[in-house]
Amino acid sequence: MSDLSMEPVVVIHGGAWAIPDKLSSASVEGVCSAARAGYDVLIRGGSAMDAVEAAVRVMEDCPAFDAGTGSVLNTKGEVEMDSVIMDGRELQCGSVACVQNIKNPVSLARAVLEKTDHTLLVGKGANEFAEEIGIHTVPTDSLVTEDAREEWRHFMQFKTTVNVLFRNREATPSTSAVCDTLGHDTVGAVALDRSGTTAAATSTGGITAKRPGRVGDSPIVGAGAYADNESGAVSTTGHGESITKVCLARQVTHLMESGMSAQKASEVALQKMADRVKGHGGVVTVSKDGDIGKHFTTERMAWAWIKAGKLHYGLNSGEDFIAAE
Amino acid sequence: MSDLSMEPVVVIHGGAWAIPDKLSSASVEGVCSAARAGYDVLIRGGSAMDAVEAAVRVMEDCPAFDAGTGSVLNTKGEVEMDSVIMDGRELQCGSVACVQNIKNPVSLARAVLEKTDHTLLVGKGANEFAEEIGIHTVPTDSLVTEDAREEWRHFMQFKTTVNVLFRNREATPSTSAVCDTLGHDTVGAVALDRSGTTAAATSTGGITAKRPGRVGDSPIVGAGAYADNESGAVSTTGHGESITKVCLARQVTHLMESGMSAQKASEVALQKMADRVKGHGGVVTVSKDGDIGKHFTTERMAWAWIKAGKLHYGLNSGEDFIAAE
Repeated sequence: MSDLSMEPVVVIHGGAWAIPDKLSSASVEGVCSAARAGYDVLIRGGSAMDAVEAAVRVMEDCPAFDAGTGSVLNTKGEVEMDSVIMDGRELQCGSVACVQNIKNPVSLARAVLEKTDHTLLVGKGANEFAEEIGIHTVPTDSLVTEDAREEWRHFMQFKTTVNVLFRNREATPSTSAVCDTLGHDTVGAVALDRSGTTAAATSTGGITAKRPGRVGDSPIVGAGAYADNESGAVSTTGHGESITKVCLARQVTHLMESGMSAQKASEVALQKMADRVKGHGGVVTVSKDGDIGKHFTTERMAWAWIKAGKLHYGLNSGEDFIAAE
Repeated sequence: MSDLSMEPVVVIHGGAWAIPDKLSSASVEGVCSAARAGYDVLIRGGSAMDAVEAAVRVMEDCPAFDAGTGSVLNTKGEVEMDSVIMDGRELQCGSVACVQNIKNPVSLARAVLEKTDHTLLVGKGANEFAEEIGIHTVPTDSLVTEDAREEWRHFMQFKTTVNVLFRNREATPSTSAVCDTLGHDTVGAVALDRSGTTAAATSTGGITAKRPGRVGDSPIVGAGAYADNESGAVSTTGHGESITKVCLARQVTHLMESGMSAQKASEVALQKMADRVKGHGGVVTVSKDGDIGKHFTTERMAWAWIKAGKLHYGLNSGEDFIAAE
């Protein structure tokens, strides 16, 4: 698979939830920019790892998304971020969880993979590692948008549990009103490069008004992301606790191992999650052969992918807009 | 499956590695005591969750094991512990990672499951949660044994990476000499109760001289443990980073879902891990029907199980001692 003959692919998500109209165009533009950044790496012969890192960094730097700049606040009004990156060749992976004051957590996760014997560093230890390797801290205020502060104030007033956020279909009008104003748009990317290598990355600020120290699915290998050159790569988003319970990303690759297409595997895995733990979310997937999967059981998911120079993107169910690159 | 007709089962491990002779009898006694504690819960009609928690607490309180009292030290000479517990009915799970000064991390993990909307709390936030719910902190010194301190001094002198610890077959004589003196005996338990519910729990102090903030597989749902009444329950031990890469516990349940026995699934999953990422370890498994699996690819694993009033236990490959309870 190293004959440099594969058609490169990148698939992006910007979070699966009831994205409010005021954020919809910024979300769509953000995932399209991320897809272009990742694809640009791939067509220059870059690696899948470089592509997913570049794509996720674009979304971490975009304040419309709940990752890096734009991250939501915990109950203490602080930012705690999680990220994972995984290389499908040897299943090498790196994650950080509950890390503070880092502009691009996905790059710190990659440093865990490349510069340590470990796969996951959390909290203060993750920040100490960042300092050691010269990844500079940034002031908390530089990561926090006015929207995030407003959302936090709103949420602290309602004191709604996180569980309502991804159960819109069962939500009451009052909880819906809260949901509609809250962002929880984890970002992620998967890629297949010309050598046939897959990679996946996911990054998040978590859930507004989460308990300090809470870690969802995003940095967890097998839940928030998985990449294996023997099947494909997956990045997930949605209700983190539900995704954790069913190991959603690994479930998608298991289904692909059994011969299912990337699209079918994405749909079946999300349906299983809904059936078993009543959780909603979304996934983006690329198979080892370059087939694309994307699916969401929430109201909306911002997504985009590029293959053979064509950009596809959408937000609402059934949408598939196409733009030549 | 709630007709109270199942034959209860508990299966225990006390860590898979090159357990030195000086620890062998304490390890075997510890896993047998833990099995008795778990089985005692089950024959009184208690739940699988109560059984695995009781069993793991026995091992956390036993200084021979690297969990709770007896935990190893990180590079700073501090104790950071990880634990997970999972209920196979609704896939509910709770974990703590990088938590300090807690006597029984498995009970804190269970409190995350029962008292929060989250599945994983890490670091300082996990400790703050413990305080809130009245789980008292204990002095660091009460968790640290003289053996753990000696091991730490030895390790800091050799500065060997964690990777050598579980690759004894490829190890050089010099690394073997280091391995033989180092403890990394994560503990775990799985159970099936009379109502047909499965549960799994795992607890660890991690790896001697780990980087502060390092979290291995143990608290990760799908890696360190998994429980699903539709297949069975699994607890794993061994090289945490390898176990994380292959989502070892979830792999075992996937194989059981495809019709494989608990024993065969345990063997196949460990072989896949060795083939794909060259990592070694061990698992204990109980299927939804009460079939038992245990397997290890390290030199030794302390294990024990009880079913129908008979205690089985062993340490070296091929051993299966039996004692009437």
